[in-house]
Amino acid sequence: MAIFEKVALIGIGLIGSSIARVVREREIINNIAISTRSQETLDAARDLGLGDEYNIDASAIVHDADLVIICTPIGVVGKVLQSIAGNLKPGAIVSDVSSVKASVLEQMQPFIPDGVHLVPAHPVAGTEKSGPQHGFSTLFDNRWCILTPPSSADKAAVKLVSEFWQACGSNIEIMDADHHDRVLAITSHLPQLVAYNMVGTADDLETVTSSEVIKYSAGGFRDSTRLAASDPTMWRDVCLHNKDSILEMLTRFSEELSAMQKAVRWGDGEALFEMFTRTRNIRRDIIDAGQEVDTPNFGRDQK
Amino acid sequence: MAIFEKVALIGIGLIGSSIARVVREREIINNIAISTRSQETLDAARDLGLGDEYNIDASAIVHDADLVIICTPIGVVGKVLQSIAGNLKPGAIVSDVSSVKASVLEQMQPFIPDGVHLVPAHPVAGTEKSGPQHGFSTLFDNRWCILTPPSSADKAAVKLVSEFWQACGSNIEIMDADHHDRVLAITSHLPQLVAYNMVGTADDLETVTSSEVIKYSAGGFRDSTRLAASDPTMWRDVCLHNKDSILEMLTRFSEELSAMQKAVRWGDGEALFEMFTRTRNIRRDIIDAGQEVDTPNFGRDQK
Repeated sequence: MAIFEKVALIGIGLIGSSIARVVREREIINNIAISTRSQETLDAARDLGLGDEYNIDASAIVHDADLVIICTPIGVVGKVLQSIAGNLKPGAIVSDVSSVKASVLEQMQPFIPDGVHLVPAHPVAGTEKSGPQHGFSTLFDNRWCILTPPSSADKAAVKLVSEFWQACGSNIEIMDADHHDRVLAITSHLPQLVAYNMVGTADDLETVTSSEVIKYSAGGFRDSTRLAASDPTMWRDVCLHNKDSILEMLTRFSEELSAMQKAVRWGDGEALFEMFTRTRNIRRDIIDAGQEVDTPNFGRDQK
Repeated sequence: MAIFEKVALIGIGLIGSSIARVVREREIINNIAISTRSQETLDAARDLGLGDEYNIDASAIVHDADLVIICTPIGVVGKVLQSIAGNLKPGAIVSDVSSVKASVLEQMQPFIPDGVHLVPAHPVAGTEKSGPQHGFSTLFDNRWCILTPPSSADKAAVKLVSEFWQACGSNIEIMDADHHDRVLAITSHLPQLVAYNMVGTADDLETVTSSEVIKYSAGGFRDSTRLAASDPTMWRDVCLHNKDSILEMLTRFSEELSAMQKAVRWGDGEALFEMFTRTRNIRRDIIDAGQEVDTPNFGRDQK
């Protein structure tokens, strides 16, 4: 039995299109309506057969939707909600997929009409690709989806959104928006910025050519380039909307790096060995938790 | 036809054992002799059937070897060579697999007897695993092997070592040891230290638990943990032996990171967008160069 009768997806990039695919494939919701800002992307979604209904005007698809998921970059979530708020049906649930939650909650809350339920969500899953053509139905399998409902949230609505994401393959965690933003700052936002920074550093060298960087990237560099290929708009918005936690993590990272640099400068082999040892077990824990593959080199080289 | 009659591998970790496997599988050299410092590792190599001859005493296996490859951590390469130098056969070639070259050249040159040829090599390939059980015969396929022969090197010996590595699947590049160390500092050593530092930063947090870091690591953090699972002894030695280039790269990286941090602090979306855009193409170039897989998430999630 379908959890809802109709879902409206506003924004149909990697995450939105993966939701559409899994919803269809596992018959989680009967009717999928899609809206997105650009006609070109909407046409691409139609060509991919992702939905049952397509409209460039988001307010035109939400009037009979039980669940509305805003899958746009963080910076425009509030505006999108404002534009559709008058058309939402009583009892509807509004959610999102943003990777920053406190700012999004603040953006959304003023526009939620009486009788409509707000349950923000963040599926912690993705790839470095963007656009509707790159989504896939198993993206959320065994990944965590974090819900950050406001304290006043309707319990039945939270339960329905949990069931929805479980049907999509996810495990559910519920936490406070501020804590979410700190947790994601270290598990996602800092690694992303560091990857961008690594690639930027290589790009700025005068004495090593970029063709050399490319040739010898299997020495480790290529790992960083995966995250650094991600959508710049999305990550700009993350930085603008989770500033405090990101600044804290960047500061901590820089402190640690200074300590490591000092150990290199002074040839302190013991300190370096200690730093390089304590980090070894966490990968095993991540593999055991089902969040990583159990093959060397992410499995990409082994034949 | 085999390139050499006998190879002596001193050290039988990930790289040494991968050499043994590919040499056997592709019949590159007829006879494989193995020595390593610990009896336990030597027994493991014997159990894996990696060689034809095993001896804890390296000097006992080199007297009739045409090619001797020292596959130990960088810090002991000179000592190992010193211990076997008196037993090397005239015309033999001595090589290594170290990821730092200037220091290794300096360590080795004083101990090379007259009539023995030194051709240092660095196969730019590996995984985060260590030990003889983790090697595999295709590790070097389509990876670069960099030779850094001293200016006085015997041309015929350089040619033979090139042919050997090509037979192992590698492409050959010849460069100056100092330039090698700068190139690897950016393509391998800096990414490695940054990965260790990322995991170390997460380990030091008070307000985010390590179980949270593990749960939500699919947001990006898990990528860093691959390199951070590498052999601490090897990486300590790399830091001690490529100090100047590593310090330069760390300094450049920190400068870039400070600029990024400033852009986050001031909410400079334009600067962030520009930083996140220029890094996007390099991954495509690395994929086109055959140094990376052409699937999202390193192919680990897509089903």
